[in-house]
Amino acid sequence: MLPGVGVFGTGSTARVLVPLLKAEGFEVHALCGQSEEEACCLAKELSIPFHTSRSDDVLLHQDVDLVCIYIPPSMTRQIAVKALGIGKNVVCEKAATAVDAFKMVTAARYYPQLLSIMGNTLRFLPAFVAMRQLLVEGYVGELQVCDVRVYGPSLLDQSYGWTCEELMGGGGLHTVGSAIIDLLSYLTGARAHRVHGLLRTFVQQNGLIRGIRRVTSDDFCFFQMLMGETGSRSVCCTVTLNFNMPGTFVHEVMVVGSSGRLIARGTELYGQRNGSKSEELLIGDSGWVGPEVKEMPLPLLQGLSSMVKALRQSFQAHEERRCWAQGPVATAPTFEDGLYVQTVVEAVKRSSCSGEWECVEIMSHEPDPNQNLCEALQRNKI
Amino acid sequence: MLPGVGVFGTGSTARVLVPLLKAEGFEVHALCGQSEEEACCLAKELSIPFHTSRSDDVLLHQDVDLVCIYIPPSMTRQIAVKALGIGKNVVCEKAATAVDAFKMVTAARYYPQLLSIMGNTLRFLPAFVAMRQLLVEGYVGELQVCDVRVYGPSLLDQSYGWTCEELMGGGGLHTVGSAIIDLLSYLTGARAHRVHGLLRTFVQQNGLIRGIRRVTSDDFCFFQMLMGETGSRSVCCTVTLNFNMPGTFVHEVMVVGSSGRLIARGTELYGQRNGSKSEELLIGDSGWVGPEVKEMPLPLLQGLSSMVKALRQSFQAHEERRCWAQGPVATAPTFEDGLYVQTVVEAVKRSSCSGEWECVEIMSHEPDPNQNLCEALQRNKI
Repeated sequence: MLPGVGVFGTGSTARVLVPLLKAEGFEVHALCGQSEEEACCLAKELSIPFHTSRSDDVLLHQDVDLVCIYIPPSMTRQIAVKALGIGKNVVCEKAATAVDAFKMVTAARYYPQLLSIMGNTLRFLPAFVAMRQLLVEGYVGELQVCDVRVYGPSLLDQSYGWTCEELMGGGGLHTVGSAIIDLLSYLTGARAHRVHGLLRTFVQQNGLIRGIRRVTSDDFCFFQMLMGETGSRSVCCTVTLNFNMPGTFVHEVMVVGSSGRLIARGTELYGQRNGSKSEELLIGDSGWVGPEVKEMPLPLLQGLSSMVKALRQSFQAHEERRCWAQGPVATAPTFEDGLYVQTVVEAVKRSSCSGEWECVEIMSHEPDPNQNLCEALQRNKI
Repeated sequence: MLPGVGVFGTGSTARVLVPLLKAEGFEVHALCGQSEEEACCLAKELSIPFHTSRSDDVLLHQDVDLVCIYIPPSMTRQIAVKALGIGKNVVCEKAATAVDAFKMVTAARYYPQLLSIMGNTLRFLPAFVAMRQLLVEGYVGELQVCDVRVYGPSLLDQSYGWTCEELMGGGGLHTVGSAIIDLLSYLTGARAHRVHGLLRTFVQQNGLIRGIRRVTSDDFCFFQMLMGETGSRSVCCTVTLNFNMPGTFVHEVMVVGSSGRLIARGTELYGQRNGSKSEELLIGDSGWVGPEVKEMPLPLLQGLSSMVKALRQSFQAHEERRCWAQGPVATAPTFEDGLYVQTVVEAVKRSSCSGEWECVEIMSHEPDPNQNLCEALQRNKI
């Protein structure tokens, strides 16, 4: 039986998610927005019976068994941890920092019977499911290189907000790079051990952001990850993100191996073995029939849609509306994956400052908050 | 009046160059190969009246006023410097090391009346001539990012030779990366001051190279260059070279600025201003009618052809067959450019070893050969 859903967030993702949930048979009982007005407006638009700006009202809502959290990164941890504590299943976006991600991991470990997955995922997109399967089957031979690029228009909101602020989780690396870092670890079955990167904010002000306000989040980022085995046998991943390209959207993931390659362009998958003269189309465009969202690239949109389908299958398997089956969501990114991704993001940012390759070391215990404060103060001085 | 030409080399470039020279009205009088047999064979094929394996026979040939040197990098410096000393005009490929490139610069400075240009150039390709012009005219606004990718099949020769040896000037970075480094400095009008890179040799042995022999030259390389102004206003260039992709050839140069972008795919040029919804074709495929060469990508082939045309114009302007006009070859890469390119190549290699950003410092005096020897010995130990 499908659980009742409470949604946090009134942004573009929440706006897309609710219809997707409904289409799969979920009932969305409650919506929480940052302001009463935003919540009211979207609840009316999407026909959600209850809305509020107080998070507890949704978390404690008796019909809500699954909480979907699509809010600014800096607020995610608090809601996610609380939701688990109250006994709700959680699907949520990434947190703002590794410390937050670690706290979420701790909560998820404490309530293993509850579903807790990262909900900004490309893993469920059919092209990437097929790509992974083909990699496992040896289509490309021994994997050598992954090359990813995402080009698009600015990620900044219409008004000044968290998207402009690096420390609040804004920027291409945190917003889009996260999904790529997660995807590459899913595809390769490995994790990055060393990273190198460079971040830039080419557009620091625009018509809406001016005066003393400046954008600090990156609009251009390239980074490299060495994954899997150390030494010369590691897989080299290069990722280029550029959000100074209005009017275009490029989302390309290429994996090259000793005997062939696979390329996902948007939602399509192409392959070419070393012997053959041209590419073959392996997964075509499925002909998206869901809502079109200007700010949301099709791969992310379809990924979200596929995830909702997997959620439905997971919950449908059980009679009890809070229970879920592992199978359909087995490949979903866990909070542990979220911590890994956040750790890589922070290592890339460190590398951009230091100019050096940085090691990816996953946090194993919560850092002393005072030491953290000192580091933050020191960083601001530089 | 056009000068008589002597050609060094029997490889694929020399094989293409001779017909191109003849088509423009140059007379090719002499050919020099590494072995008598190779020279004889190619001279017969291309109807060149004189062939030899002794370089002096071509350099001292009385009908030869222009020497074109397309031989393995480690032998280029010796021939080029000697040719200038004898009073011949020189077009040549890159040298193997910065020290060699520096010696060539010294010779070129000593004989300023002689033509001395680097002949492996993309600068003359119409798409890049137009791209540069549009950059100057402000099509993209303030330049932010250059993104280059070249993918293709293996660069290794059929048998073991210099192409397999990093120290002999083999590898994707040295062979193809050089042309890209030169092109980017031509397009941006700036030079790299810091570089970072990673080189890999994924295929160390194959059916022809086995036993104790191993390939040491890179078949995968990515590097970043910070160009022009230092600090946050420098242009970020990212270059990805992958030669483990048989059956494909991708040659893409993209420049992104504050108000638009230009993309050269192969020999075509596309542009998109920030306001517009789609790309416009600016320079179409010219419909190449010259020889097709399997090992030589079309942009390089057409670049070579355009360079030969420029050479013809340069020499045609004068009555005296050894004299040439600056105008038509004004944008050709000089030996100084060759030294810059070689310096960047070596800095990228250093960075790949050190893992750090390396400064690009152009040699201003010849290093002590003994010190050089020590360094070479040390490097071999590592």
